Amino acid sequence: MPSDILVQAVEAAEYADRLARVREIMRERSLAGLVVTDPANLFYLTGYDAWSFYTPQCLILGAEGEPHLFARAMDAAGAAYTCNLRADQIHGYPEELVHRPDVHPFDWIAERARSLLPDGETIAVEADSHYFSARGYLALGNGLPGRRLVDSTELVNWVRLVKSPHELAQLRIAGQIAATAMRIACDQLQPGRRQCDLVAEIMAAQAIGTPDHGGGYPAIVPMLPTGEAAGTPHLTWTDRVFRAGEATTIELAGVFGRYHAPLARTVMLGDPPQRLTETAKVVAEGLQATLATIRPGVTGSAVHHAFDTVIRGHGLRKDSRIGYSIGIGYPPDWGERTVSLRPGETTELAAGMAFHVILGMWMDGWGYELSEPVVVTSNGVERLTDLPPDLTIRR
Amino acid sequence: MPSDILVQAVEAAEYADRLARVREIMRERSLAGLVVTDPANLFYLTGYDAWSFYTPQCLILGAEGEPHLFARAMDAAGAAYTCNLRADQIHGYPEELVHRPDVHPFDWIAERARSLLPDGETIAVEADSHYFSARGYLALGNGLPGRRLVDSTELVNWVRLVKSPHELAQLRIAGQIAATAMRIACDQLQPGRRQCDLVAEIMAAQAIGTPDHGGGYPAIVPMLPTGEAAGTPHLTWTDRVFRAGEATTIELAGVFGRYHAPLARTVMLGDPPQRLTETAKVVAEGLQATLATIRPGVTGSAVHHAFDTVIRGHGLRKDSRIGYSIGIGYPPDWGERTVSLRPGETTELAAGMAFHVILGMWMDGWGYELSEPVVVTSNGVERLTDLPPDLTIRR
Repeated sequence: MPSDILVQAVEAAEYADRLARVREIMRERSLAGLVVTDPANLFYLTGYDAWSFYTPQCLILGAEGEPHLFARAMDAAGAAYTCNLRADQIHGYPEELVHRPDVHPFDWIAERARSLLPDGETIAVEADSHYFSARGYLALGNGLPGRRLVDSTELVNWVRLVKSPHELAQLRIAGQIAATAMRIACDQLQPGRRQCDLVAEIMAAQAIGTPDHGGGYPAIVPMLPTGEAAGTPHLTWTDRVFRAGEATTIELAGVFGRYHAPLARTVMLGDPPQRLTETAKVVAEGLQATLATIRPGVTGSAVHHAFDTVIRGHGLRKDSRIGYSIGIGYPPDWGERTVSLRPGETTELAAGMAFHVILGMWMDGWGYELSEPVVVTSNGVERLTDLPPDLTIRR
Repeated sequence: MPSDILVQAVEAAEYADRLARVREIMRERSLAGLVVTDPANLFYLTGYDAWSFYTPQCLILGAEGEPHLFARAMDAAGAAYTCNLRADQIHGYPEELVHRPDVHPFDWIAERARSLLPDGETIAVEADSHYFSARGYLALGNGLPGRRLVDSTELVNWVRLVKSPHELAQLRIAGQIAATAMRIACDQLQPGRRQCDLVAEIMAAQAIGTPDHGGGYPAIVPMLPTGEAAGTPHLTWTDRVFRAGEATTIELAGVFGRYHAPLARTVMLGDPPQRLTETAKVVAEGLQATLATIRPGVTGSAVHHAFDTVIRGHGLRKDSRIGYSIGIGYPPDWGERTVSLRPGETTELAAGMAFHVILGMWMDGWGYELSEPVVVTSNGVERLTDLPPDLTIRR
């Protein structure tokens, strides 16, 4: 039995509550089973946490009874170290099923899951989760004849939307780590330094965390498009040096206990061009308007509208969403894939939801980013970092 | 147009050759099209490199003509910075398709791909790649009526198996970075330090790389199961401190230009128990036998047999494979998902193949790991690092 190796920070009652909320939706939708493959959902429901998602794994929930975890044998052996399942709820598939053209781990899983997922019933799968491949889906369906497989449409992700006090505490620590890492990034971005050397400092700060709380790995590595490339958001670093006269957008996250607080800022080396100064001013005003709008009962669409009104008033426009729900994250994404702050989003905000408000202005050949991770409170919004919302200028 | 932002290190002729080899297999299999979704395959065929794989993207190859890249609009805009495609070969789907329950980016992609993927033909998809979800697969099939979708069975991955001189040069640099990071890890693992603080040093070293070659991000974060948890391979770090009397297995990779050289070692704090010393000795002998066997014409199974014979002679056994093909890597995995060094592997090794020989002995409550990234040469094997194969003991 595991001893003090990894302490469960989440209490058994909270896991039971999470499971009960999932089961309630399953009943509403007449689902006799749910196959959970998103690592963030696995972590949420059981605490299971390992870099094992590159081979097939899943948690299977029947309509009743305890959940069962299926993973590669070498991972199943260690699963008990991090999760709240007993050994008899954990099933390891044989090593020889890994990376074979003729058989697939989900063949094996389907065969063993038949008693959990009754014939003639409807079973939901996480059809758009990152590590449930088309082949896995087909193998599962093939091995469960008589069951109707439907898309869960992010069932567990939606249950994760409102955070518990425990989760909010994790997010606040993640926010502290994000702020520390971003301060270091803005201080250390200097002409003549290589991008990779700055990233080394950011990643070290992310892992060190605080003296009391070590940082976890972020779902996304630091991104820092520079110069002309700053007009595009998802480029990672190179070993090119920073040069005077260039702006760099930096996006990173602080992570604690798998909870993510993402954060973006922009650094200008030298005097900023007027368009950048003006954009920064307008976007800061837009952030203020956005945060002033966030409170329970307001829709995601209304929050977007507040920002959009400000920037349109200054002749700017932004086509992409200005934020999305955050919480637990695993590569390749720290978003929850549920609520977006954009036109048409009818979900009403509620206390305990958390968002990454990200105001990325990606222009042709340049860009500006400002963001803030926030929590919806009973009557407004709580910022998770204390950084000023300004363009950083280093002369 | 991009200027000097990201230089293409791969020559046009090499891209043309890669594409020609893929097309040749397509012809052999009567495939009229191929939908490439694995980021490593995208990079191999076009140089496209961004952290954009968390929303759907693909490269579509018809039987003839140029390939076309489909990605989210904000990523499509920046794609030309890193890849060898012209703007008219890059197609950005609208932002409002992201994370919607009712529509999916692959609906949009399928509609636009119809002319590239003719009716009545067989089209291969990468059915087991990590970022091609079941929902994406179903949307693609639905939007391409009259086409028969089949599994590519890692078609492009297999084309990647034998490396070009350019690729081998990248791997050698990655090996230098891996060795540097591992030296730092073994030196800095000390009683009383937190795991996360050691990881900070490892990740910084991975990013810094060498003075001439900055490091890239690894497909997998450093893993360092410690103490009792060392019996399980894929646990990531915590903020627990290292203690005298414990062994830690460390697995990391050096990365250059997306090419990965993974490396594993074990560090003992204090006097090792006899079982660890003995296992280390046997595994080092097993590594020697393994490397002595690797050369062109030998099967993956024969390489495994060489190792297995040594350890069985000492009463040890290992159920999992002892290695796998490596090269380009993206999260969540740095393996190529093709050749494994295990019983039944009939693929014959050839000069230019690269492997991570990983000898992980995961016992109940303890473990030992030793690994080496290697390249098959014309008459034997080339190690990519120069680290001794021993258990590191720190007293």
